[in-house]
Amino acid sequence: MNITILGGGGFLGRKIAERLAASGKLGGRAVASLVLFDLAPPAPLEAAFPVHCIGGDIAALPAEAVPEGTDVVFHLAAVVSAAAEADYDLGRRVNLRGIDAVVDICRALARPPRVVFTSSVASFSGGQSAHLADDARQLPANSYGAQKAAAELILSDASRRGFLDAVNLRLPTIAIRPGAPNKAASSFISSMLREPLLGLATTLPVDEDFRVWIASPAHAVAWLLHSAEIDTASLGADRSITPPGLSASVGAMLDAMEQVRPGTRALVTAAPDPVVADIVGSWPASFAAARAPGLGYIRHGGLVALVEEFIARDLQATRALRNL
Amino acid sequence: MNITILGGGGFLGRKIAERLAASGKLGGRAVASLVLFDLAPPAPLEAAFPVHCIGGDIAALPAEAVPEGTDVVFHLAAVVSAAAEADYDLGRRVNLRGIDAVVDICRALARPPRVVFTSSVASFSGGQSAHLADDARQLPANSYGAQKAAAELILSDASRRGFLDAVNLRLPTIAIRPGAPNKAASSFISSMLREPLLGLATTLPVDEDFRVWIASPAHAVAWLLHSAEIDTASLGADRSITPPGLSASVGAMLDAMEQVRPGTRALVTAAPDPVVADIVGSWPASFAAARAPGLGYIRHGGLVALVEEFIARDLQATRALRNL
Repeated sequence: MNITILGGGGFLGRKIAERLAASGKLGGRAVASLVLFDLAPPAPLEAAFPVHCIGGDIAALPAEAVPEGTDVVFHLAAVVSAAAEADYDLGRRVNLRGIDAVVDICRALARPPRVVFTSSVASFSGGQSAHLADDARQLPANSYGAQKAAAELILSDASRRGFLDAVNLRLPTIAIRPGAPNKAASSFISSMLREPLLGLATTLPVDEDFRVWIASPAHAVAWLLHSAEIDTASLGADRSITPPGLSASVGAMLDAMEQVRPGTRALVTAAPDPVVADIVGSWPASFAAARAPGLGYIRHGGLVALVEEFIARDLQATRALRNL
Repeated sequence: MNITILGGGGFLGRKIAERLAASGKLGGRAVASLVLFDLAPPAPLEAAFPVHCIGGDIAALPAEAVPEGTDVVFHLAAVVSAAAEADYDLGRRVNLRGIDAVVDICRALARPPRVVFTSSVASFSGGQSAHLADDARQLPANSYGAQKAAAELILSDASRRGFLDAVNLRLPTIAIRPGAPNKAASSFISSMLREPLLGLATTLPVDEDFRVWIASPAHAVAWLLHSAEIDTASLGADRSITPPGLSASVGAMLDAMEQVRPGTRALVTAAPDPVVADIVGSWPASFAAARAPGLGYIRHGGLVALVEEFIARDLQATRALRNL
């Protein structure tokens, strides 16, 4: 298997790369080579197969990023929600022109590769009261979501034409993200758990009964890897999959944290932020996700397991990264 | 009112321009200027207001096409269904990069103009058995439709951001188109009526019980003009409107023609074309179109009226154009 990860320097991209390096396999087949592509060249990765780290602009993707013989492209490169809202041109360039570049580089290959694309819960609206079916219309209330929904259309069409073989995975908000807060409007959903678990105070921009549709990094990685393996013939024209995430209130998430690490909840202070609440508040808080389990996507665990996953896998590295 | 028609050399663009020249008004306000933009400069138009005819590439729209002070942009420029299927790059350039160009030229203006965009029935699938609600998901089965659906997302988002004020009008297949057959997969839906009414033999690539979702040119023009006038505040986040077209079988359309001009039906010969049937067969044959009448969009007339409209308004000009 020859694999490329676009956005390979990002947090999910890195986790996928590390999983491939550890197992040496994807879908039961040996990994022969890996390209990690990002804005800046991703850090080297030790593996039993050659790993090529490339830096560049996704909208002007160099041929070496997806070389002849590539079997799977994980396309995770994106300008996230608040950043795409703040800079329309940048969002359009990365989130839409980047898609065209992926289509063009794939159609130049002799054999169409599987493209696992990360779409998003933000491509929907409906907000707190929504419980959306798999075939719900995407009526996004932010530029990031509009660009993701448009990208799904373009990749589905490119699949129909045989240029590539796309699976559009509509990821929930990922929590708990390691590292530091980022520019996503949903950044607080990780921060409100990660910062207290690091012993740091943090603020909560929404009410405790605010509900979010989430998934842990380990579930997101498992779903992304599974998307590289599924039989796309069974998908028909609909290349988009809503994986079975978790619908949870912010209060329940804080309770789970307090249960695992007593005393942490006291580090969270309310600080309402209407801008953040507006963006994240437009995203649906729940999905039926009825299709994914039948396609073999694993169901999500509970909130305590989500907190414990972060402590076991990411707390130490986050501490080191941030010199804590 | 300062108005621009992108695709102003095309058949619907020309009809809108002629209506504006004849009435001198749009939405009760006097027309002050008109720009007609197309690939080749559109033919001059006599009017009581200045008409500026410009030729150029929609993806590199010159500033003079949408000058400061523009109130309404009709965006009709497109690479149609079979052409976008035959040439992916051309379709993407005109149907998607063209949308970006429209967004960019509008956001450079001091005041966001109304943009009336022609989306299409082809942005949906479901085929012969479909009867779709206004909020049905767009799952297009052709590149033209995918590009139109993506364009709706981009224009709706640009409206939310205040760059422009879009109405995405999802036009049915237009019949009876004047002139000659074109590259649309749906071209036969006009040809099977227009050619016999001109006294010419024609072929039918589908069965007579094949159903289509259609609208006459006069209805399409009325809906487009109405889209320039409606209060978009009432649309909310959903800028897309399915106008109340007509669901009709090919056989019923031929019967209406025969009723108006006896003897014409004998000029139609069956000649099944699976390529055409595949593309047009993926488009839904019926829509609920429940929202549009409440917004003031006129309901469609019957098939006999549709045939009579062509004879009254377009037969003579078509005869002249084709030297018949």
